[in-house]
Amino acid sequence: MSVNRRRFIGASALAGSVAFAPPTVVAATPPPEVTRILARYIVNGHFADIPGPVRKEAARTLLNWVGCALGGSRTDAVGIAISALSPFFGAAQATVLGRKERVDVFNAALLNGIASHILDYDDTHLRTVIHPAGPVVSAILALSEYQPVSGSDFLNAIVLGIETECRIGNAVYPAHYDIGWHITGTAGVFGAAAAAGKILGLSEQRMTWALSIAATQPVGLREMFGSMTKSFHPGRAAQNGLTAAFLASKSFTSSEQGIEAKSGWANVTSTARNYAEITDKLGQTYEVSVNTYKPFACGIVIHPTIDGCIQLRNQYKLTADQIRSIELRVHPLVLELTGKKTPQSGLEGKFSVYHAAAVAIVEGAAGEQQFTDRAVRNPIIMALRDRVSTTIDASIAEDQVRIKVTLTDGRTLDKYIEHAVGSVKNPMSDADLERKFAGLADGVIPADQAKRVMELCWSIASLPEAGALAKAAGA
Amino acid sequence: MSVNRRRFIGASALAGSVAFAPPTVVAATPPPEVTRILARYIVNGHFADIPGPVRKEAARTLLNWVGCALGGSRTDAVGIAISALSPFFGAAQATVLGRKERVDVFNAALLNGIASHILDYDDTHLRTVIHPAGPVVSAILALSEYQPVSGSDFLNAIVLGIETECRIGNAVYPAHYDIGWHITGTAGVFGAAAAAGKILGLSEQRMTWALSIAATQPVGLREMFGSMTKSFHPGRAAQNGLTAAFLASKSFTSSEQGIEAKSGWANVTSTARNYAEITDKLGQTYEVSVNTYKPFACGIVIHPTIDGCIQLRNQYKLTADQIRSIELRVHPLVLELTGKKTPQSGLEGKFSVYHAAAVAIVEGAAGEQQFTDRAVRNPIIMALRDRVSTTIDASIAEDQVRIKVTLTDGRTLDKYIEHAVGSVKNPMSDADLERKFAGLADGVIPADQAKRVMELCWSIASLPEAGALAKAAGA
Repeated sequence: MSVNRRRFIGASALAGSVAFAPPTVVAATPPPEVTRILARYIVNGHFADIPGPVRKEAARTLLNWVGCALGGSRTDAVGIAISALSPFFGAAQATVLGRKERVDVFNAALLNGIASHILDYDDTHLRTVIHPAGPVVSAILALSEYQPVSGSDFLNAIVLGIETECRIGNAVYPAHYDIGWHITGTAGVFGAAAAAGKILGLSEQRMTWALSIAATQPVGLREMFGSMTKSFHPGRAAQNGLTAAFLASKSFTSSEQGIEAKSGWANVTSTARNYAEITDKLGQTYEVSVNTYKPFACGIVIHPTIDGCIQLRNQYKLTADQIRSIELRVHPLVLELTGKKTPQSGLEGKFSVYHAAAVAIVEGAAGEQQFTDRAVRNPIIMALRDRVSTTIDASIAEDQVRIKVTLTDGRTLDKYIEHAVGSVKNPMSDADLERKFAGLADGVIPADQAKRVMELCWSIASLPEAGALAKAAGA
Repeated sequence: MSVNRRRFIGASALAGSVAFAPPTVVAATPPPEVTRILARYIVNGHFADIPGPVRKEAARTLLNWVGCALGGSRTDAVGIAISALSPFFGAAQATVLGRKERVDVFNAALLNGIASHILDYDDTHLRTVIHPAGPVVSAILALSEYQPVSGSDFLNAIVLGIETECRIGNAVYPAHYDIGWHITGTAGVFGAAAAAGKILGLSEQRMTWALSIAATQPVGLREMFGSMTKSFHPGRAAQNGLTAAFLASKSFTSSEQGIEAKSGWANVTSTARNYAEITDKLGQTYEVSVNTYKPFACGIVIHPTIDGCIQLRNQYKLTADQIRSIELRVHPLVLELTGKKTPQSGLEGKFSVYHAAAVAIVEGAAGEQQFTDRAVRNPIIMALRDRVSTTIDASIAEDQVRIKVTLTDGRTLDKYIEHAVGSVKNPMSDADLERKFAGLADGVIPADQAKRVMELCWSIASLPEAGALAKAAGA
């Protein structure tokens, strides 16, 4: 088997260039039948063909996602969604992770999708800033309790779903994202449809329709960042993908070129596209291999800053009153996504590189506790936040930062972060992921239950029924 | 009250310029708070303020929509959607028109939305080619069986919902449509959210959120035209609008500028926009007043051709074997939307101006029977279809056509249609609408029941509970 090792071997060995690919270009002659080629690949993809390291990365992705969904399960966003929509719930088919409610498959997918994203702590495909697990795992974990599926088939569907959404994302990023689409929802719907359709055993024709029914339901504007509606996107994408797969399973007809047609998804939602990103080397490379996991509970573009500030704090035993100013040289996306100068809530704090730098210095951490209303209203952190300034520098990559701290005694301290912790070049270890999971599950389910759920994630490929994982993760 | 009579008086008195407005332009300085201004208007809109002729047109819109939903209720698209999604239905809260099933509010909205659009026979706001009732009435007729609402409040919500979606459509048409969006779904979601939010009694803040949650869920690519997925769009838009309204009703937070923000709906989904179309003269003009109803069961751009061909047939007693060729000079959109030369199914026939011209000559009609598999496979119609040719002519308006028929004996017959029947300048009468309704309901519900349902539509404003209409229209 010819395999592009750069993509399928462990994330730690990957070149930074994967994360910072050049802009896509308009293909002069689009390859024919992009949607059908992708459908054929999904229909014919077998677990046996997936290399061991790819399976392992998919299991890491699953474990990280379940932890995030547990951690977000008691937030207001999930509680409100249940309160608003429960009059319309169907039969008690599927688990809402970390909660007592059992709801129909579609609403479980929505609620788990919201929960997994509300903390901004989930996985990231750095090249496209897609959060791959949200749409895909939300859809099929709920489905697994209705349509029995082996753990290996389930893991295969995760790999294929993530391959689908990230390849489509690769084809249109950054143009599509720059327009204002929240790509996790807009590309994620394809991943959810692919994974759900795989578990339903769709034929090539029906999978083609499923992808096209997905294409007509993109969800997510970047304008929603900073509100609960951002977390709605992966949940709704999961629902939309399930809807596409189930409709197609009964031959609800659709386009056969939903992605590449003149009025198809790629042309309508992007100003540039490269279909070779979708069709080339299918089955030889795996996008899940370059998935990453956040060590900090906020937007990934702030992670280099947090990493650097925590290192400076620990190295020099810094306290806020010693600091006259903090100057950050950052990638342009940092201010575009996280430029809030005066966040008013914990949620807004996740979109403020100023708050993140200050809280990292003051508290030496950037977990959920550092993005609460308490933290953003702490007078010491607020005062330090106001002494943080930023400069955009196009020579700084997305996982880098240059920090200059000027102390009240006149000294200056410099820190250059080349690859932030959690990046492709500096990934979290399995033990890091387990600690993160335990922290997220703490206070939601008992520690021994959390341990059991982690074990089910690691052993997913050998489970007779993947639904056992979902059932084990309820409250 | 200062009222723009051109818009609110009966459709028959309206100038053609309303239907064929110049392209929108980019507003140099967008007015602030477009989303909030619209929300405030919806929240404060009272039935008492709506002029009588506007109420009447809203009732005509309702009657036409109910007829279309009944007519489409037994199609494969609806049957398949029920079969695919019924395992996930919630409580039996709402009626699927023309059928025995009672399902939850959200799925009733989806199914009735599909049914009302699958025949391509529903209402059209000509300026934007939005089918206004689909998203709006699908959403709130289902809702009316769960949340009791008086007939006058229900009619008020229809007017406000249509105002919302059509004003937003006016702001971005034609740029948004030209990109490839099926505007009925992409703008319709706002109408559904507005109407449902009105019935739920949302505050201005929550209505603002509801519109933004709608903004993040546009549905519909024009690539889906010719497949069942086209009819999915208004149904899904209705569901998305309901979801937005219910989430907002419990304070699921969202943007407050979902329409006009830099990464908001109008910038992301269109290359041009004119916000004055949304905010100017709110409460003084009514878009429902320029709604139109189709006399023929296919895309509206073919109607002038059908009107002309039927007139020629009747005038000269034409038969297919007398005709050597039919030459059509048509608006450019005709070939873009309905240019299929060799339709293979009844559904595809609706997207073929060639089939439409031929069947109109051969059968003297263009109802559902003329867009069946039987009709498109009729050898006489197929042979005549192949003798139809088209020329695009930018001087021909959307409701016009120039037809030249050359007979085998060498004679030529000319017909110029200035305003097709069913257009703003040549509207269907109430009696026409009742005949259309009766034809659509025929074979679905008994004639006396159809009559009763029509009476409820005409008297909607005086009903104690609008839900009575839905209940009366089941099978």
